[in-house]
Amino acid sequence: MKRIPHIPLNADYALDPSVLDYIKNGEQVVDLDRNGLKLLQKPGGFCFGTDSVLLAAYAKAWRGERVVDLCCGSGVVPILMSARYAGACFYGVEIQDEMADMAVRNVRMNGLGNRISVVKGDIRGDYGGLVPGYFDVATVNPPYMKVRGPLEHTERNIARHELLCGMEDVAAAAAALLKYGGKLFLVHRTERLTDVLYALRERGLEPKTLRFVHPFADKPSKLFLMTAIKGASAGMLTEAPLIFYKEPGITSDEIDSIYYK
Amino acid sequence: MKRIPHIPLNADYALDPSVLDYIKNGEQVVDLDRNGLKLLQKPGGFCFGTDSVLLAAYAKAWRGERVVDLCCGSGVVPILMSARYAGACFYGVEIQDEMADMAVRNVRMNGLGNRISVVKGDIRGDYGGLVPGYFDVATVNPPYMKVRGPLEHTERNIARHELLCGMEDVAAAAAALLKYGGKLFLVHRTERLTDVLYALRERGLEPKTLRFVHPFADKPSKLFLMTAIKGASAGMLTEAPLIFYKEPGITSDEIDSIYYK
Repeated sequence: MKRIPHIPLNADYALDPSVLDYIKNGEQVVDLDRNGLKLLQKPGGFCFGTDSVLLAAYAKAWRGERVVDLCCGSGVVPILMSARYAGACFYGVEIQDEMADMAVRNVRMNGLGNRISVVKGDIRGDYGGLVPGYFDVATVNPPYMKVRGPLEHTERNIARHELLCGMEDVAAAAAALLKYGGKLFLVHRTERLTDVLYALRERGLEPKTLRFVHPFADKPSKLFLMTAIKGASAGMLTEAPLIFYKEPGITSDEIDSIYYK
Repeated sequence: MKRIPHIPLNADYALDPSVLDYIKNGEQVVDLDRNGLKLLQKPGGFCFGTDSVLLAAYAKAWRGERVVDLCCGSGVVPILMSARYAGACFYGVEIQDEMADMAVRNVRMNGLGNRISVVKGDIRGDYGGLVPGYFDVATVNPPYMKVRGPLEHTERNIARHELLCGMEDVAAAAAALLKYGGKLFLVHRTERLTDVLYALRERGLEPKTLRFVHPFADKPSKLFLMTAIKGASAGMLTEAPLIFYKEPGITSDEIDSIYYK
């Protein structure tokens, strides 16, 4: 067990020219512990989390496939996936100007400009020029929380709350962008499970595999990972649970292998 | 670990007058290992299984509550629950004449005639005289399998396949019979998860807790247990998984406590 890298570290890169060209004021650099990949993020704004790392490990993309990441934020999911799936090409859609800009810098800083394209778009109908029906795979780590009452449109709130994009919008966009038989991989909060399953089926994206993440083997699940297939028939496989910690502070072997292999 | 009693045993009761008054030709008697409860069942016809035992342990009913078991079969769920919840009264609805007759004999054989009533009815609109909006709790272990192609209407097929009652019918009947705020407890096959969640939400029964049963900790789930509440707001708790075997042939401590406590 090493330290989980989504707790931001810093400073090692302070004078590294490969970073200085890309970093902006107030941003941090995180080592992704995979093929030397690094990521810019913004403490107090958007920081990527466990959910993105788990999604990037759960999702699959084969050689020649086109993958679109909806609500891509800083681009962490396609950046991590690009290391696992060398033969696929990746696209990210992000609604916030500053986040899309950071995602572009993250892609360039990692020298992935030829494999990952980031576009600015609002998935409620504007796919930033991406062609509907063109993608084999979609990934999404959407805003998790329902909006209850007034909420300021900060970068962080937009990434976390369904202010600009709800689960119905995610399902509609994935259904539009995927080809028939294409796969959607998503991570979401377990308390939203019914909302997610319902919205996907409404859009013809049939949930096919489901994996719950539990902090400990004897505790309720907080997150789940899911695959849905456009146009598939009904039938769900619920895999063995993914247990995060084997004891307090000690991550399980499977979590270690996701983070460090 | 003792032997799981859903594998039918027999003969011990062959000459027991408390059984002879109730048993019919071709039936067996099973010891339910709880308060001396016994159950008639029919090899080759309907035999109760693990699912019913898990459902009866998962469901809750407080003092004074009225509980209705839909598709009650031989009556095993209310009979088992009656031992746990002494203050509740139970009703069962069964569509098949022979099964309803066997359920009545099971209730009488166990001396539970004052606490469990079995009625014959077709939950697609005929509740056998039970009053809509009258029940605090509903339980159901419905037919699990979709009907694919022609299938004979045998007792066993009707209990296992959605020949006379699909998940939409179950959801509609539970929504009709429960009072506002009433709870539905169900067990179903994991592969049908989306169908179940979708049908329940369509009828205003919001899924609230979910527990997956896995044969082993590292294997996919076959069954799940769920609570839904009539009129509740969205929000799901997915509990720690219920693991059946700790090693091949050895049931887990939790399963032992469900079967033998």
